[in-house]
Amino acid sequence: MAEYIVGIDLGGTSAKLALFDRQLDEVGRWQVATNAKNGGQAIIPDLIASIQGELKERKLTSSDLIGIGMGTPGSIDRQAGSVQGAFNLGWAKAQDIRGAFQEAFPGVKVALENDANVAALGEHAKGAGKDYRHLLLVTLGTGIGGGLIVNDQLLVGAGNAGEIGHIQANPEGFLCTCGNRGCIETIASATGFRQTALARAKQEESPESSFKSFVQAHPDRIDTELIFEKARAKDVFAQAVVEECLTYLGRCLSQIANCVHPQCILLGGGVAQAGNYLIQGLEPAFEAGLYPGIKGSVEIKIASLGNDAGMIGAASLVQNDLKE
Amino acid sequence: MAEYIVGIDLGGTSAKLALFDRQLDEVGRWQVATNAKNGGQAIIPDLIASIQGELKERKLTSSDLIGIGMGTPGSIDRQAGSVQGAFNLGWAKAQDIRGAFQEAFPGVKVALENDANVAALGEHAKGAGKDYRHLLLVTLGTGIGGGLIVNDQLLVGAGNAGEIGHIQANPEGFLCTCGNRGCIETIASATGFRQTALARAKQEESPESSFKSFVQAHPDRIDTELIFEKARAKDVFAQAVVEECLTYLGRCLSQIANCVHPQCILLGGGVAQAGNYLIQGLEPAFEAGLYPGIKGSVEIKIASLGNDAGMIGAASLVQNDLKE
Repeated sequence: MAEYIVGIDLGGTSAKLALFDRQLDEVGRWQVATNAKNGGQAIIPDLIASIQGELKERKLTSSDLIGIGMGTPGSIDRQAGSVQGAFNLGWAKAQDIRGAFQEAFPGVKVALENDANVAALGEHAKGAGKDYRHLLLVTLGTGIGGGLIVNDQLLVGAGNAGEIGHIQANPEGFLCTCGNRGCIETIASATGFRQTALARAKQEESPESSFKSFVQAHPDRIDTELIFEKARAKDVFAQAVVEECLTYLGRCLSQIANCVHPQCILLGGGVAQAGNYLIQGLEPAFEAGLYPGIKGSVEIKIASLGNDAGMIGAASLVQNDLKE
Repeated sequence: MAEYIVGIDLGGTSAKLALFDRQLDEVGRWQVATNAKNGGQAIIPDLIASIQGELKERKLTSSDLIGIGMGTPGSIDRQAGSVQGAFNLGWAKAQDIRGAFQEAFPGVKVALENDANVAALGEHAKGAGKDYRHLLLVTLGTGIGGGLIVNDQLLVGAGNAGEIGHIQANPEGFLCTCGNRGCIETIASATGFRQTALARAKQEESPESSFKSFVQAHPDRIDTELIFEKARAKDVFAQAVVEECLTYLGRCLSQIANCVHPQCILLGGGVAQAGNYLIQGLEPAFEAGLYPGIKGSVEIKIASLGNDAGMIGAASLVQNDLKE
């Protein structure tokens, strides 16, 4: 009887894979470098070969596999089992992922989902979100991603629900990679903190401090970690930058909360390493924006699974399918 | 065999009731005045008596009734079948609605939901939303209400999802009845258009026009209908007011769309009588705020059922229960 699920978190540099049992307990994990050359044509064959190798090493065969779940960048066609527009993988046009996996592992279930959504599913299955039926995961990394769980199920709506990084927070703000202006991703991602610091350092009206002078002199050495470090050390310029970015983020999260009323908002990604300092910074604007009817009923916490959330969530796509 | 469903849309002035068959086709309708005196203690007995009268007139009995669905102001406890905080009904404390109905009509199913949510269900069942699985209804009346349908089901999240009227659109804006500042309800409801016009009329920098002078002279005669009428007639002050309010509304709807990706946003309530003029006014900000990945996939339309949406949606609560 088939007993195992493969969870894959596919990224631009490498893919993280793990073998899970039916209870989503991990049996083993490995990595595969992502080869985005030649339109990323080697990516799926490389993944398949690595899974075959792992199965062989464990004296397992394709028939021991229930399914393969994968989180991936790009735009997912869940019905077709394909992905397109994942430019960092070389996948501009639609790639038939399900077909390729099923050819190599006949009879196996294959489920695809976008990377922020699988991270939300992972935190919901095994992480800081496991006690909540209604959950928002926000990944604060180079960009901002989001995954919404409602009634213990991923909310995709007409296909792309949860893309909260592109909620317009400041119509006069920075240009976003998406082409719009002032998306929350341009303000409260790692990129956002950095470009806010650089922009404010050029302005006379922003508070003067030794860090402001440093930013002016060494714009290439500024990152979110340093900005938070200086803010914690009470540098007034760094504090002003953090306050500006987190006020926008807190307000944006309150808008989402008023709309979908989650029980908990989990913050993940590199920026979330700032932990409670991050939460405390965004809470004033978050609380000010919450509708009184839901005040006190939405927790904000730091996600707990880090980079493992993707693999677990990807595997849970197959597990959820088993339950239905 | 029980064949009929009663749908009730309970408001502060009157309750609209209708008898439906299993297919939600209307068999008859009537109204009952809402008596909010003495803590609204007569409201449910009055509704019960009117339903009993209707049944008798149609030579039906309690056993012909499948269920009673009711949309109501206030905060709903769906499990307990009770309502509280409906101050315009006199219901400050929790009222046991389900118990009262079931005592009068033994064995009948009783379902309660808030008024904006039943309107969304009504439009989804029989109105302009019937072709969409993922739908947002926005009621632009004295306040702003919202109801979210995802996968053909009402989204309530942790209880109060869809309260989009209290999404904070302008943190420096007008004080809202909820106690927060700058909720979209303070800007783009009937109340919002009016107070924006009054506030801008006091400012030197707003465009001068005959309507601006009229607003200054007769603030008590200003309502949304007049503002729209003057804007259509190209009064520059009225146009500026409408543009300001609808820019906030368009942006707010784009934020919601980016978050839950509905196929369609329906606009209902008194303000929506402005029809296409309303839609055209909010579209520039809506489109500017939409994430490119969903651009072109979210329609905006005017709701079609008017005041009937509530009764139909209320009845559909019972019908949905039958399907499960």
